[in-house]
Parts: sequence; C-alpha cells; structure tokens
Amino acid sequence: MHRLLFTGFCFLMNIAAIAQHEDSLLIRKIADEVLTNGKAYSNLYTLTKTVGGRMNGSPQTYKAVAWGQKALQEAGADKVYLQECKIPHWVRGGKDIAKLVSGNKETDLHVLALGNSVGTSSRGITANVILINSFDELEKRKDEVKGRIVFYNYKFNPKFIETFYSYSDAVRYRGSGASRAAKYGAVAVLVRSMTHSTDNNPHTGAMNYNDSFPKIPAMAVGLWDADKLAEAIQEDNKTKVFLKSNAHTLPDTIGYNVVGEWTGVVFPNQYITVGGHLDSWDPAEGASDDGTGCVHSIEVLRVLKAVGYKPQHSIRVVLFTDEENRGGGAIKYAAEAKQKNEQHLFALESDAGGFTPRGFSFVLTNDRLEKIRSWVPLLQPYGVYEFTQGFGGADTEPLNISFGTPVAELMPDSQRYFDYHHAPSDVFENVNKRELELGAINMAALIYLVDKYGL
Amino acid sequence: MHRLLFTGFCFLMNIAAIAQHEDSLLIRKIADEVLTNGKAYSNLYTLTKTVGGRMNGSPQTYKAVAWGQKALQEAGADKVYLQECKIPHWVRGGKDIAKLVSGNKETDLHVLALGNSVGTSSRGITANVILINSFDELEKRKDEVKGRIVFYNYKFNPKFIETFYSYSDAVRYRGSGASRAAKYGAVAVLVRSMTHSTDNNPHTGAMNYNDSFPKIPAMAVGLWDADKLAEAIQEDNKTKVFLKSNAHTLPDTIGYNVVGEWTGVVFPNQYITVGGHLDSWDPAEGASDDGTGCVHSIEVLRVLKAVGYKPQHSIRVVLFTDEENRGGGAIKYAAEAKQKNEQHLFALESDAGGFTPRGFSFVLTNDRLEKIRSWVPLLQPYGVYEFTQGFGGADTEPLNISFGTPVAELMPDSQRYFDYHHAPSDVFENVNKRELELGAINMAALIYLVDKYGL
Repeated sequence: MHRLLFTGFCFLMNIAAIAQHEDSLLIRKIADEVLTNGKAYSNLYTLTKTVGGRMNGSPQTYKAVAWGQKALQEAGADKVYLQECKIPHWVRGGKDIAKLVSGNKETDLHVLALGNSVGTSSRGITANVILINSFDELEKRKDEVKGRIVFYNYKFNPKFIETFYSYSDAVRYRGSGASRAAKYGAVAVLVRSMTHSTDNNPHTGAMNYNDSFPKIPAMAVGLWDADKLAEAIQEDNKTKVFLKSNAHTLPDTIGYNVVGEWTGVVFPNQYITVGGHLDSWDPAEGASDDGTGCVHSIEVLRVLKAVGYKPQHSIRVVLFTDEENRGGGAIKYAAEAKQKNEQHLFALESDAGGFTPRGFSFVLTNDRLEKIRSWVPLLQPYGVYEFTQGFGGADTEPLNISFGTPVAELMPDSQRYFDYHHAPSDVFENVNKRELELGAINMAALIYLVDKYGL
Repeated sequence: MHRLLFTGFCFLMNIAAIAQHEDSLLIRKIADEVLTNGKAYSNLYTLTKTVGGRMNGSPQTYKAVAWGQKALQEAGADKVYLQECKIPHWVRGGKDIAKLVSGNKETDLHVLALGNSVGTSSRGITANVILINSFDELEKRKDEVKGRIVFYNYKFNPKFIETFYSYSDAVRYRGSGASRAAKYGAVAVLVRSMTHSTDNNPHTGAMNYNDSFPKIPAMAVGLWDADKLAEAIQEDNKTKVFLKSNAHTLPDTIGYNVVGEWTGVVFPNQYITVGGHLDSWDPAEGASDDGTGCVHSIEVLRVLKAVGYKPQHSIRVVLFTDEENRGGGAIKYAAEAKQKNEQHLFALESDAGGFTPRGFSFVLTNDRLEKIRSWVPLLQPYGVYEFTQGFGGADTEPLNISFGTPVAELMPDSQRYFDYHHAPSDVFENVNKRELELGAINMAALIYLVDKYGL
C-alpha cells in the first residue's frame, strides 16, 4: 500500500472511529437521562390511571387526546395538532355472559365479545356447542354445525419462540371464524383466547364479518374455561352453552391522531415519524397495548431535546387513533402526507409492549439494512442486539405503502405481551419501569442515528 | 489451493455443517419438549406453594430437601443422594418493627432485619437518626454518629443497564454498614433496600459483623419509606426512629445439598454439574431466588433424557444448601469432590432468576471462550446471543477455585430480578412460565454442547 493511501485510509478510519465514539457518548447521555429523569413511566401512569381504557368512541378516547396534547407540549414539541378522521364505533354494551349448561347445572365462563361482533337477542342464545379444533375440522364436520355454537379451540402454538408467530398463526380463528361457521349455519362462535397466559382472562380483539353470511355473535373465552368446555363437550356432545351480549355497532364517529412536531434545523420539510397508538380495547387500561408505545414515542422527543440534540429533519411524534379496529388513523396520516406531498425519511413504531428491547424489525432494502447493521454495537449495551428484515407495524405500514418510506418497529422481548394483550390484565402494574425506559432509549438512539446518517 | 486439499477442506466443512445441523435439530427437540411438556413451572409451583420460603434451619429447609429428592427422581436421575454440611442458623424471631417518630406522631416504616443481624432489646431502641449517603460521608461525619441510628440512603444506581452492577455497587452498605457505623458509636443501622422496585417492600439479605466493633441491629427499609425518612431528617435533624427486632443467631445446624446423578456412558467418572440453590430468605417463597435455578437444573436432566440423549460424561444436578449466608453447600460440594479426587469438566449455575435468557457468563480462558462462541448461533433462536467472560455464580465458584473447573452462569434479563430479590414479592406469581422455560432450554443446550464437544 502506498504511504499516502495508507495515511488516507487511517484518516478515514479515524473519522469513523471518532464518529462512532461521538455517537456512543450521545447515546450514553440519552440513556442516563431516561434512566434518571425519564417521564415515560409517569406519563404511562397518568394515561392508564386517569384516562384508562380508550376504545374508539368512548369518552376516554377524547380524554386521551387531551392527555396526548399536553404530554407532547410538556415534552417540548414545537407544535401540537390533531388530525381528524372517521373511526368505527363498536360498543360492548355491558357485561358479556356465557354459561356452560350441563343438565341443571350452569357454570359461568369468562368471556368477552369480540370487537365488531353483533350481540345476542336480549334473552341470549342457548344452543348445543360443537368443539372444532381447526378450520380443516370445520370443513370436515360442516354438516354438524347447523343451529349450534361453534367453539374454536385452536391453541396458541407454544413451539414458536417469538409469541407474535403464535398470534399470527392463531388469530384467523378470531378474525374470520364467525363467518366461516355462519356459512354452515352456526348460531354463534366461541374462540379460545389468543394467549399463552396461565390465567383465565378472556382476550378480546377485532373480528370481521364476510357479508355473504349471517352475522352471528362471537366471543373469546379464557384458557381455563376453554379447557373446561372442551372437556365437557368430549364427555357429552349434547353440552349446551348460554351466551348473552349487548354488543352492537353505532355509526362511525370521529377520532384524532395527536401529532407533536419538532422542526428540523437543516431539512425542516423532511419528516421522521415515531409513534404508537392511543386507542385500546376496553377490558383494562391499554397499558402494554399501546400506552407503552405512546409514552415511548413522547419520550424520544423529550430526551433528544433534554440532551441538547438539534435534529436535521423534522421529527413527528404521532399518537395514532383506531389502530385496533380499522387502522383509520394510520391511513389518515399517510393520506394527508400524500396530499401535502411531504417527504418522509423514516417511520418508527412501538406497538409490541414496554418489555426489555431485543431488536428492531425493518422494512427496507436488504443492502440498506446491511449498512445500518453497523449501528447495532452502539445499541447493544442497551439491549438491542439485532436488526431484522420483517415488518414495521400496522401504523407505519400505510406510509411505507404510499411512499416506500422505510419503516421499523421496536421488538421487545415477546414472552409476556400476549399474557396481557386485549385482556383485563393489560394494566399499568404489568409494565416494568426500567424495561419501558430501555425501549425509549433504543428508540431515541435509532431516531438520532437515522436523523444524522440517513437510511 | 491443491485440488486434494480443497476436497479435504470441503469434506471438513461438510462434517462441521452436518454436526451443526445435528446440534440444531437436537436443540430444537429440547425446546419443543420443554415448551410443550415442561415440568419447570409446575415444579416451581410445588416448591413455592407447598414448601414456601426456605431459610437455613427452618422446617421448610428440610421439606425442600424431600421435595428436591422426589423431583430429581421423577426427572430420571440414576441416583439421588444428600451431602450433609454445617450451616449457620439465624432466625428473625417474628415481625421487625420500625417507626419514624416525629414529635408525638409515629409512622410505621416497612423494614426487615438483615440476615445475621442481632436484634434489639425487647423494649426496642429509640434514637436520633443520621442520614448518611455514602461511606465517604460517614467518615466525614463520624463525630456525629455516636448514640445515633445511621440511615444509609445510598441509592441503587439506575445508570447501570445490568442491574447486577447496581447491586455490586450498593450491597456493601448492607454487608458491612453496621460495623462501620458501630466503629463510631452508632446504636443501629437502617439501610435503603437494594432494589430499583417501584414498591415499598423491604429487601433483606446477609450482613456480617467485624468482630472488632460492637454488634448493632441492622435493618433494610423499603424505598418509599427510605425517601420519607430522608425527607423527615432533612426537615428536622432531631428526627428519631424506633426499632424493634427479635433477630438472633442459634448454633450452626445441618443442611443438605441434594444431588441427582445421571451416569455418563463414556466417561462416567467425569462430571458436569448443573445447579441452583435450594435455600432462600424468609419474607416470601424464594421463587426467583432461587427456586427458578433449582427447577431449571432439574429440567436440564429431565429434558435431555426425554429427547433420548445419552451423555458421555456424568451429569450431576445439585440443589445447593446455604447459598444465601455462608455458602456452606458449595464449599462442601467442592471439598467432597477434592477428597474423592473427582474430575470436573464444567459447572453451570442458574441464580439470576427465571427471566428470558440473554447470555451465559463464563469463567474460563479467553481462547476457550472464543472457541465456544461458535455455539452462540445455535442458541440465538432461543434467546441467548452472547457468551461473556465474567463470573460463574457463587455455588460453582469453589469448584473453579479448587480444580480450575470452567464455570458459567445463565444470564437472564436482569431488569426485574432486584424487584423481587429477598423481598416479600419473591413469589411464584412473579415468574413467567415461558421465560422460565427458555432458561431451561438454553441451559440444557449448553450442557449438551459441553458434554458432546468438551470445553
């Protein structure tokens, strides 16, 4: 090697090393600030305990919007504004009831009507129940379904290490099970809850009807009761179940994305989005789904300001509405960006809980992903050790589809997420302060790196 | 490259690839078995709920020994036996009491006497309390200490990402704070609990006296009350505290290591040890410290048998006695090994909780560690992504010291460990089934790899 070349090479190496060192110091400052003065946990407390569950159209939806505006202002956003959009308005209408009827004996089952489900008549439904373990079995036994309640007992597969795979695998029973059973004359469906939990909580979540078939009520049942019901049916195939629910759908209502903007000093018209969703299901406080994503995102803004960072691009924190049902907030955000011909550099989402982070999942080209893997050693001290190619989350997807914007999602440890997901246990107490803070640190570090180096 | 050499190289590559593939398949079988038929969680339930807390010398200590023997037999050990040793026998003697006395007003403080502490007289102690934030401050203010209660308010440092560093940093106040204060005439000490928890639970744990100074009572105080006390002292330096404890030490008693052995088919006289400790502190059930380590270790044996593995070396599962106080069980195990001139290939410990695993920490030469890092990709699908050089745990240390045996410890995510450590919250309910199972999977995989390839 020529000496001059060698010198040049060393110089470049030094530049890279210095940059890496600067980044490492800045990320350390971010971590220290979050771990000593962090607001994510206290913000989550306020959201979960003074607002509570935030189902589309509920009074809490609008209280949460006010909470989000205030929290973003306090975090230091240059401007905070709302994006209005239409959102579906399903209501539970009180307590859902199910009873296992065996002879004269009635046993309560822990159930929750699924989101978008119709209710029963005011007298409820009593019918024989048929145990169906899979859609394959449904097809084979379709002649036995008529007039009966179909009980889908498809289990969350424990062999997947990442629980999101178990969810992807099982959630079709929740999503389309009712119409598939109605096609063969079922009068209602019960669905085993989508969880590995060791408790008996039912887990609700969205379902959708195929308009070709009658709309029949659909409920989720807790795991202990699912096992109990399966056993009862196996012992006696005349087992009946009584179901009662007042669930119904009202006309669409209005929801709001809450947007907090921090203007970039070099490229004010180029945007980096970071967000979570403000809506939740109703059985609890929407702590892990997705209060944590909201407070993570707000904390990114707060901490980058606190450490004195000046972003090159404008950073937008978005608390999306209606992720849980129709995704109206995310669609609105991308549509407005399109209409204004905005330039979007990157969008990051947190919607997998406030557990200790392990990685980020990206949607971008393989060569760009390979390039930014050089950042992983900067994050590894704070828990993130892998960047994977995969998906970027439901709320950033429309941006990716509209603009080809690279998107990513924080991937925390997934083991506990579905213990609480859409269940009465999704409360503040099931979020750990430090685990939550580590998520915010890694998100802020990633936003900093993307802002500084591009993607 | 010569063609023959190239062919040889390819052949070796293939051998390596086939071996890796075989290993990967076997580890997948281990994982499937643990995740579908695992006994770690139900074993932990029995240990915590039918035995409970297992402090040295308590009736539960001996009940736990019987539990361990049975569990090891059920897991398929060829022989199960006990190793008897002397263990210290400290007793709490009932409820520890502390009150903040301000004028006529008394406020209860949540406290626990530290292990090995003396009690107060039966009337208790009332004295002025001095707030000391560090040993440096103690030295500076040593003349103010006489006749007072020293309150060490040294905080768990939130800036360490791994909470074990915060513990190492702070635990000297618990361990030696009493004698250092007694040197200057203090009548008792209160120590801020060693935790990042967001609750008010006090966290006990061992302390030791320096025989040169009077033995004075020592108690841990919960974080909310520590903050309240600090505030009260800052407002009024005449603040008094009343303390009462019946803690005392009885003569040494007898403890037992429970050993389950599975005889190796090739080297039956060479041993691989895997263990946790059976004793615990008394305020709760010793679930994470260290019920999880016991059931992890038992599960290693069970699952390797269940997947049809035949170990080359003898595998010993050891449930150690007296880790929490004098380490008598571990010393006994190493001493007996020395006396019998046993050959010990490796020892693995689990004593950092049943949270999702992230790595293994080893004590072995750097070049050997570098060599076995080629195993990491086999474990990464199950959560372990790093092998670090560091420490191997308290119960395997004597083996390392006596024989130079390489040792290692499972490193689960550390964020929640000190929320429960030595506190009333260390209960079964704070252990997650799948997180626990992932620990057992990675431990079994590591034992398999060490047994097959050596170290």
